Amino acid sequence: MQALAFHILASDPAMTPDASTRLQIINTLTQASGSRGMAGGQAIDLSSVGRQLDIVELENMHIHKTGALIRASVLMGAMAHGSLEGEVLEDLDHFAKNIGLAFQIQDDILDVEGDTEILGKTQGSDIAQNKPTYPAIIGMAESKQEVESLYHEAKKALERFGEEADFLRAVADFIVRRQH
Amino acid sequence: MQALAFHILASDPAMTPDASTRLQIINTLTQASGSRGMAGGQAIDLSSVGRQLDIVELENMHIHKTGALIRASVLMGAMAHGSLEGEVLEDLDHFAKNIGLAFQIQDDILDVEGDTEILGKTQGSDIAQNKPTYPAIIGMAESKQEVESLYHEAKKALERFGEEADFLRAVADFIVRRQH
Repeated sequence: MQALAFHILASDPAMTPDASTRLQIINTLTQASGSRGMAGGQAIDLSSVGRQLDIVELENMHIHKTGALIRASVLMGAMAHGSLEGEVLEDLDHFAKNIGLAFQIQDDILDVEGDTEILGKTQGSDIAQNKPTYPAIIGMAESKQEVESLYHEAKKALERFGEEADFLRAVADFIVRRQH
Repeated sequence: MQALAFHILASDPAMTPDASTRLQIINTLTQASGSRGMAGGQAIDLSSVGRQLDIVELENMHIHKTGALIRASVLMGAMAHGSLEGEVLEDLDHFAKNIGLAFQIQDDILDVEGDTEILGKTQGSDIAQNKPTYPAIIGMAESKQEVESLYHEAKKALERFGEEADFLRAVADFIVRRQH
């Protein structure tokens, strides 16, 4: 699957024809999926089962495990545009970082409060496996507050954009409003 | 590890600075490692344990499993050179295809005849696991003959090159003469 992703980025004719932009995009994905990204986060995850993480370790795990890929998805889209300035990319990165972490915390909240039928996995399954979760470490009320705070920070990062960023706003809305 | 490989190909300053050549090299590796290459060969390998493969299936497995990566290694090196013609690449590919298969058959032979101490795995371990091997399917004498035949075919593919291909010849010698 990973090889397929790089294959598409390197050769799909629907991609930008500019070879150095393609390389920049490929490089962004390698960093997000390797040991400093997803694979690194999975290593933290595997080593954490059965022991208590503190909130800093938990956040660190999420930032690597799925956060890195969410950020890469946003940045690769922006890079494909080809002519965006550094500051614009930084704002998009800030959006992605915040909404990626909000997604994870919301996931933990739904593991406690969600409806198994629409969740697609047994409600409470993370807790049953003794996986670290936000509600378990900082409590449910503070977890929900954190999601709201990250959501607003993410939306704020899109302020410089007009309706061209409406899709990203819709993604943010979906992430925090979803029930499964 | 795979992400690291693509990271190096996409960004290492020691690589050719030509972006489209880099993309061509990356694409070669994606094809060799994906479902039509190594991953596809591993799938055949996993599905074959415990049942008898015929010689065509066994060869097909090896061509994908490690053969594809050996071919890619040779081709990527040639591509990094940047200005080789199609026919030259075809000869190098023919060399790599033959020597890659010779490597696999030699591996099966050593599994039967090799010295465990220098082999790095228990001699006979493939047979004990009921993995399909060349000697088991076509016999030891014919397996050795096949290695010799592939070795000579590989060397013949290098005929157009002078001493600049001596390293590849040394690789070929090593592969068929190794005792572990």
